[in-house]
Amino acid sequence: MWEAPQGTLSSLPGFSDEVASRIVAGRSEKDLDSELERARNLGVGILTVLDEDYPPLLRQIENPPVVLYVRGEMLIDTARTLAIVGTRRSSRYGRAMASKIARDLARLGITVVSGLAVGIDTAAHTGALESGRTVAVLGSGLGHIYPASNARLAEQICAQGGSLISEYPIAMPPSKWTFPQRNRIISGLSRGVIVVEAPQRSGALITARLAMEQGREVFAVPGNVTSQASAGTNSLIKDGAKLVTCVEDVVSEFPDLATLTEPQAKAQQQREATLSPEERRVYDLIGLEPLHIDDIISQVGISPTRAAQILLMLQMQGLIEQIEGRRYIRSP
Amino acid sequence: MWEAPQGTLSSLPGFSDEVASRIVAGRSEKDLDSELERARNLGVGILTVLDEDYPPLLRQIENPPVVLYVRGEMLIDTARTLAIVGTRRSSRYGRAMASKIARDLARLGITVVSGLAVGIDTAAHTGALESGRTVAVLGSGLGHIYPASNARLAEQICAQGGSLISEYPIAMPPSKWTFPQRNRIISGLSRGVIVVEAPQRSGALITARLAMEQGREVFAVPGNVTSQASAGTNSLIKDGAKLVTCVEDVVSEFPDLATLTEPQAKAQQQREATLSPEERRVYDLIGLEPLHIDDIISQVGISPTRAAQILLMLQMQGLIEQIEGRRYIRSP
Repeated sequence: MWEAPQGTLSSLPGFSDEVASRIVAGRSEKDLDSELERARNLGVGILTVLDEDYPPLLRQIENPPVVLYVRGEMLIDTARTLAIVGTRRSSRYGRAMASKIARDLARLGITVVSGLAVGIDTAAHTGALESGRTVAVLGSGLGHIYPASNARLAEQICAQGGSLISEYPIAMPPSKWTFPQRNRIISGLSRGVIVVEAPQRSGALITARLAMEQGREVFAVPGNVTSQASAGTNSLIKDGAKLVTCVEDVVSEFPDLATLTEPQAKAQQQREATLSPEERRVYDLIGLEPLHIDDIISQVGISPTRAAQILLMLQMQGLIEQIEGRRYIRSP
Repeated sequence: MWEAPQGTLSSLPGFSDEVASRIVAGRSEKDLDSELERARNLGVGILTVLDEDYPPLLRQIENPPVVLYVRGEMLIDTARTLAIVGTRRSSRYGRAMASKIARDLARLGITVVSGLAVGIDTAAHTGALESGRTVAVLGSGLGHIYPASNARLAEQICAQGGSLISEYPIAMPPSKWTFPQRNRIISGLSRGVIVVEAPQRSGALITARLAMEQGREVFAVPGNVTSQASAGTNSLIKDGAKLVTCVEDVVSEFPDLATLTEPQAKAQQQREATLSPEERRVYDLIGLEPLHIDDIISQVGISPTRAAQILLMLQMQGLIEQIEGRRYIRSP
């Protein structure tokens, strides 16, 4: 795509002359090397759909992003993710519910995925941060946090073991079409989607529809019929979404999540929190793809003896596992 | 039951010695003739389960009341009845929803059945009276309107073509056990039951459970999770009750009700409203059991010529039909 002549591009199935010429024009303005440098400067990692650590659930959707830019934790454990979405034009009731459900999910060790928008999304991220981890999927490049009022929230998300994710080039501003497109990543990353508040015709309902198409569970919080912001969620329930009043209603749909307990989650969090910066760097490097000790040594820049010490300690804490050939992966 | 010796009663299946002796004690205090006189004085009619005009849907339940005391319209057309129930400890939201749904149902010619209690019941009756007809089923004898604050509402219900109904002797006061027992009549009289607001453990939930056991449709209005008064209704929806935001959600479940229109209902109401007192007496007398013209003449006390005139007019208005042998029934 980066090097093919325009004629080759336009002969591909689904690529018109116009699309091909726009790609050629676009790539002349972009420079792969400077994009990679921008990523490095911002502490942004890049995952492609070919990487072993690419979120497994997201890979299964019909049109997974080819590239994911990630700030913060690179490894998204999509066995334990649930999305909370809702309208920007939320009520105090909706925000309180989003915050409470997010807090209770995070307390169980579940990662709350949302979109960093004002309203329900912000309440969900904020609630999750009170007791655990959260992931924000942006409708803009990671160099362009939108809305700007959530810049501090974005920092906090990364500082507390969560991630900021985008499929767009780092400097790209948000636009009207990026948000609906982004929504497929929110649902794609998640086992299920909880819609807290949504008027009729709202982005959150698009996410719910995408979630159904992706085979994800859809949940909705009921609300007063007289509240515009609950019209969409009440409709979803009429159409078969599961009514949610508390996290038990959600986790009970997933046998493996239903058995999660707060003490378990707390112990895991505490083990992670006690890691030294050096230990953390080793831990963060180890993902779902087996990594050889020599690569760890060279990438973290520590001695073989120190690497062996840290790896043994991480294994004893149950955070990683050794597999054949001195290679390591994260514990499930 | 009224005449059998105590020994015979106690030998019946399910009748202990104690029950038999209580029946004997009870009947000595009561006098059938004076009960009938009390009924006449209050304008109360009596239907037994053997009467043709006994409400057909109510007859089908497992334990229909043997006797129904009725004030107002004797004929309850249970092809077009829906119950609206809910808690006494209602919110402004709940009362507004009950009133709106009742008004919209009554506008379509559907009779709204409820229990005359404060809160949701009162809102339902009041809403229905704005555009049509309503039936109140009491947990006390009809000589003992409870709560007293609804005495005027009870009068209005009768004045606007509706009915007050009870299975209890006229002078009987309400008690703790009569209300749950009464609830089976509310659901038994109705094609479906709409629960507007109900906390967990509420009489309205008992009615909903009875309705399910009777094979009736159960509907519930959703509400904010943070409102105690919506905890029971949200639960009902979780358990499979249909979520209701407007009357269309209710009538769409019944093919014959879904086609009702406001103009139809209005025309019927207008035809009934234009009847003279004499015509009304003839009309009220005619029910689902074929009634011979001679009985009409003697019971209303009019001349054969006048009776024939009125009957012809009622037929032309489509309010009654003549069947073989100069006998008449209500139009469906």
